[in-house]
Amino acid sequence: MIAKLRIAVIGAGYWGPNLARNFDASPDWDLVAVCDRDRERAQLVADRHGGVRVVTALNELLAADDIDAVAIATPAATHHEIACAALAAGKHVMVEKPLADTAERGEDMVRTAAAAGLILMADHTYCYTPAVLKMRELVREGALGDILFIDSVRINLGLVQPDVDVFWDLAPHDLSIIDFLLPGGLRPTGVAAQGADPLGAGKACIGYLTIPLANEAIAHVHVNWLSPTKIRRMVIGGTTRTLVWDDLNPQQRLSVYDRGVDLTQQSVDGIDRAASMVSYRLGDTWSPALSEREALAVMAEEFAASIREQRPARTDGEAGLRVLAVLEAASRSLANEGKLSLLTENGAPALDVGRTAVVL
Amino acid sequence: MIAKLRIAVIGAGYWGPNLARNFDASPDWDLVAVCDRDRERAQLVADRHGGVRVVTALNELLAADDIDAVAIATPAATHHEIACAALAAGKHVMVEKPLADTAERGEDMVRTAAAAGLILMADHTYCYTPAVLKMRELVREGALGDILFIDSVRINLGLVQPDVDVFWDLAPHDLSIIDFLLPGGLRPTGVAAQGADPLGAGKACIGYLTIPLANEAIAHVHVNWLSPTKIRRMVIGGTTRTLVWDDLNPQQRLSVYDRGVDLTQQSVDGIDRAASMVSYRLGDTWSPALSEREALAVMAEEFAASIREQRPARTDGEAGLRVLAVLEAASRSLANEGKLSLLTENGAPALDVGRTAVVL
Amino acid sequence: MIAKLRIAVIGAGYWGPNLARNFDASPDWDLVAVCDRDRERAQLVADRHGGVRVVTALNELLAADDIDAVAIATPAATHHEIACAALAAGKHVMVEKPLADTAERGEDMVRTAAAAGLILMADHTYCYTPAVLKMRELVREGALGDILFIDSVRINLGLVQPDVDVFWDLAPHDLSIIDFLLPGGLRPTGVAAQGADPLGAGKACIGYLTIPLANEAIAHVHVNWLSPTKIRRMVIGGTTRTLVWDDLNPQQRLSVYDRGVDLTQQSVDGIDRAASMVSYRLGDTWSPALSEREALAVMAEEFAASIREQRPARTDGEAGLRVLAVLEAASRSLANEGKLSLLTENGAPALDVGRTAVVL
Amino acid sequence: MIAKLRIAVIGAGYWGPNLARNFDASPDWDLVAVCDRDRERAQLVADRHGGVRVVTALNELLAADDIDAVAIATPAATHHEIACAALAAGKHVMVEKPLADTAERGEDMVRTAAAAGLILMADHTYCYTPAVLKMRELVREGALGDILFIDSVRINLGLVQPDVDVFWDLAPHDLSIIDFLLPGGLRPTGVAAQGADPLGAGKACIGYLTIPLANEAIAHVHVNWLSPTKIRRMVIGGTTRTLVWDDLNPQQRLSVYDRGVDLTQQSVDGIDRAASMVSYRLGDTWSPALSEREALAVMAEEFAASIREQRPARTDGEAGLRVLAVLEAASRSLANEGKLSLLTENGAPALDVGRTAVVL
Repeated sequence: MIAKLRIAVIGAGYWGPNLARNFDASPDWDLVAVCDRDRERAQLVADRHGGVRVVTALNELLAADDIDAVAIATPAATHHEIACAALAAGKHVMVEKPLADTAERGEDMVRTAAAAGLILMADHTYCYTPAVLKMRELVREGALGDILFIDSVRINLGLVQPDVDVFWDLAPHDLSIIDFLLPGGLRPTGVAAQGADPLGAGKACIGYLTIPLANEAIAHVHVNWLSPTKIRRMVIGGTTRTLVWDDLNPQQRLSVYDRGVDLTQQSVDGIDRAASMVSYRLGDTWSPALSEREALAVMAEEFAASIREQRPARTDGEAGLRVLAVLEAASRSLANEGKLSLLTENGAPALDVGRTAVVL
Repeated sequence: MIAKLRIAVIGAGYWGPNLARNFDASPDWDLVAVCDRDRERAQLVADRHGGVRVVTALNELLAADDIDAVAIATPAATHHEIACAALAAGKHVMVEKPLADTAERGEDMVRTAAAAGLILMADHTYCYTPAVLKMRELVREGALGDILFIDSVRINLGLVQPDVDVFWDLAPHDLSIIDFLLPGGLRPTGVAAQGADPLGAGKACIGYLTIPLANEAIAHVHVNWLSPTKIRRMVIGGTTRTLVWDDLNPQQRLSVYDRGVDLTQQSVDGIDRAASMVSYRLGDTWSPALSEREALAVMAEEFAASIREQRPARTDGEAGLRVLAVLEAASRSLANEGKLSLLTENGAPALDVGRTAVVL
Repeated sequence: MIAKLRIAVIGAGYWGPNLARNFDASPDWDLVAVCDRDRERAQLVADRHGGVRVVTALNELLAADDIDAVAIATPAATHHEIACAALAAGKHVMVEKPLADTAERGEDMVRTAAAAGLILMADHTYCYTPAVLKMRELVREGALGDILFIDSVRINLGLVQPDVDVFWDLAPHDLSIIDFLLPGGLRPTGVAAQGADPLGAGKACIGYLTIPLANEAIAHVHVNWLSPTKIRRMVIGGTTRTLVWDDLNPQQRLSVYDRGVDLTQQSVDGIDRAASMVSYRLGDTWSPALSEREALAVMAEEFAASIREQRPARTDGEAGLRVLAVLEAASRSLANEGKLSLLTENGAPALDVGRTAVVL
Repeated sequence: MIAKLRIAVIGAGYWGPNLARNFDASPDWDLVAVCDRDRERAQLVADRHGGVRVVTALNELLAADDIDAVAIATPAATHHEIACAALAAGKHVMVEKPLADTAERGEDMVRTAAAAGLILMADHTYCYTPAVLKMRELVREGALGDILFIDSVRINLGLVQPDVDVFWDLAPHDLSIIDFLLPGGLRPTGVAAQGADPLGAGKACIGYLTIPLANEAIAHVHVNWLSPTKIRRMVIGGTTRTLVWDDLNPQQRLSVYDRGVDLTQQSVDGIDRAASMVSYRLGDTWSPALSEREALAVMAEEFAASIREQRPARTDGEAGLRVLAVLEAASRSLANEGKLSLLTENGAPALDVGRTAVVL
């Protein structure tokens, strides 16, 4: 039998207690400490888990010998500092989404972890739900054929956040899922963003992201804090099948439509015409059975496995970085009236000059 | 009792027979002729309606004394020529959507009709469905409060058209409906468009339109020929209520959510903060009963009423023009990497220079 | 090429025009006459089909040489007389449901047709819908395993009929479908019926049928004229799969749940216990693609095929009889406070005495 | 401020922990002890609630001075003995459903509580859900008009129980809800039951209950352990409105259809005919907003209120008795081939002889 890994949870606010509960329940982990500046808050969480140690000072926590890894659930602006300190202390690190508040700081975290030979994992929780795991399996085994489009809608009444707009609040979910599904991850050629602030909240409360992908495919994300109707749906259209994920329909979360579109070049009067040349195949619909496992439990297992097998987690720091690159590009596009903000293969901003010149 | 108006239908292809059937059944109209270059096709339609007259030459048709109005259901590229000839012959004109193939030609049609004192009506059929008529009533009586956003999705497997992209094929539906709903019609400050052609069809098969409205509200339209799942849904979010139209749910096409969002300015430490300042009201949902009346029958009635009352039809030529202006702006944005294409109050392209300068 | 068969439709009320339209459009049939005592009504139907012959006297119609078959769409009380006269005149006969107003008269019709070597077909239209045809295929190929239960709900606001109660009005649909699905047809051991007449209409407006089947399986039918919510759903539970037909969900009419129940005998403390001995298998859900063909067109084809191949139609007179036997048993049960009315294998009433004695 | 009442939970199996959690969280109650023969099981529950007292002997528990009331969550066969002992010790009593295993024992409990002047409450949990509370409000304020029918479906894959059939396992939910809704409670004139055991489990796994109500209305309950499709829906049809409760649709649990049916006596040829005499009103649909409060929390509040105000709980012992009377009548009907088992106003079995004679 393998010895359990030992973990401390940093941050006892909204998300930390969920992490604590799942690491405590995991066969892979021993929860050994809860760390928060607010001792009372930390104690409440610790009490629910057999009275594990409570620590209020980060450096005290990181100095401890009996901790292999930390899970960070503090505000995004503090991720970089805490994660780098933990890595410097030789701890593996898992960070709540988003990985950091800027891509630059995220890159520094990834570099630091790599240099130290430690695991840096992004807590992209949705990726570990049974539905998304099955979607990844289907996309990657080619069940959909080539991806033509991904359309994601995540709208609901939501609190206007003090520090972030609706893109930075909600889109990380959609982007991390799309990154998880696509072989090679989400590496768009650009990002266009449109936002609206009809209530005068001082930031976008409604947002649309358009993300050109390789091979002329396209992804699109609609996030919205102002909709009383709750919709969480992603449609992934492929050449052979189309998949619909309706997260609010527990009776049938995933539907796979065995219907494909194909382009048949037809020569009409000696001219290749694209008219009426799409052929359709109308087939059955199929809804795979899904397990009921909690996503955070699967994530805890993956974190342990990546440490033991010394391999990147399925949602590693790089995945977190790719999400950040898209969010930053979205902010740039938003400031430029929605014009496409180009990205390099590595997710860095591309110079727009050349291409724009061509268009002109 | 009022004498019936007399109408001829021009074009006996896909849509013309529907027009003929509804004008024939209308208490306001006598269907007196069907006109098509293809005599056999016209005869087939005429036979279904008591053998009304068949005409193959437009000028012969327009020379007839016993025709008060014509309904044009020919390809968009021919609308301008036929409509202007009919107006010149003193006939009232109804034109299938889109009004014309360019805004310039559409404007000429509107001017010609105005000069002749004749009715020019756009056949925006969807506007006359019981659902949309009820939506207009609700929006215009203020049941939703101020409009915050309109989000329209119209996706389905559809034939790639030879002459138009997915914007020009499908978006006229959404745009004419939005125009019909908003008091004053659809007069956006700009349009941004993103498209994709993942099958290599030579034109956009997937399209997204973002349309900033007055008061920082926003409209967004998603049209897509490549989706095996059929979705036709419009969400209209207001400050006091939100309306959802799900056209594929005959049991409950319209849902009105009595839930509002409101912004409460809160002073925190002397600073106005937009954080947690949105207050929600969670109320009931309400689904109004709708009549089962056919849209084209209502449209035929409206055409007759506008002629008799000498007032613009509810979907007049101007409405058709506003739709054209958005479609043309979308094409310009598409050619400029999705950057917002600005529009004047009248729907004409605005010079982008000034505003861009301000942004810079 | 095979010569077309020639048919006359008798009865030009509600259903007759649908029959006329489908026989007229069928490649197997020539519609040659429409017969109704009300000449004007018949003429209206005839005019829609190229002015076929109108006849007002039945004997005149049946005397015609150019008619191979008749389709009867008159009130149930007249079916026996008209059908027997047609059979006597050498015509094949199709009869709208129910086959007759009593089982006795239905039996006479079946005997007469058999003696004359002519086809007698029951117009169980629902059986020829794409959904029910697929259900029959699935049940008969064993896809569901052994049938455990069939639960059918058909409720809606409906007109209270002058001559029949809700059982005789609506249940023929459910019963004919169940008969069509089960290999060997619907041959229950008994029928129990409960009804209610809360409006004081003088007959049951709400009805429940319980129908014990072979092997302890059970069928149950809920028919209701007083429900503003429309439900048309049949659940067929089998040992290996369960099928749900939701006729009002055009996007997914059929769902096949790959979930079975099985009984595992467990010996607990030397005693066979039925507790916790049902094992479940939770599998995928599957929704087969269905064609869009109109049921009456398929039925017209089947009528022609049965005549040409000299074999019983898939919904032959015997099927009609089995439905009548259940309806009559239901009426008996209703008069006996819902007590099970026993049936013999042939659908005749069984003597209840013996079994009741055992219970006492 | 009012002093809290003090409660002990008896039975730490499946349901007891939920009771303990809710009484512990209630502002009305102090949870002071958990009692179970299995000390370990009781301790686990006690630990989750600040280490309240653990007791394994019932008489020790009942002898304690610091306990005002007990909540009993033990098997049904033990309810009578434990409840009577608790009442004898002067404690108020809440009992998990069903109240007892026989109506006779239930009656004894009700008499004993009345004699002692103590509260006896049935834990009909579903009655305290926001949906059912709203339904009661609507029914009782007359929003539906006169009740015409109640149709309840509760089907799902469920474990075959060792001691009870599907009627005794599931129908108490439906019956207690119907009892809660109807003014005066569920007082049917009779009960008819049909069951099936297609797996050979030794007891009914599929069951149908038909329950004639006053004024020719009818209630019907379908319970089923063998259906992989989960349905929990109740339709309540009234003369002015119809209510549908779909408990598995969290987005719209309740729908109120503003559609009524009415009987208009029409004199046709001097005869009152019930034909085409039902008039319909098609109105809007309305879905009331529901709170998210947990049912057990509301129930704990009601238990406290009934004790303090010295009035019967809304689900008192009498309500529990009425449910038992129907279940026992169902068992009698089941043994008599589904024949209606008559009940007196008080829920006692009525002699069937007279009425049957009338029918004969």
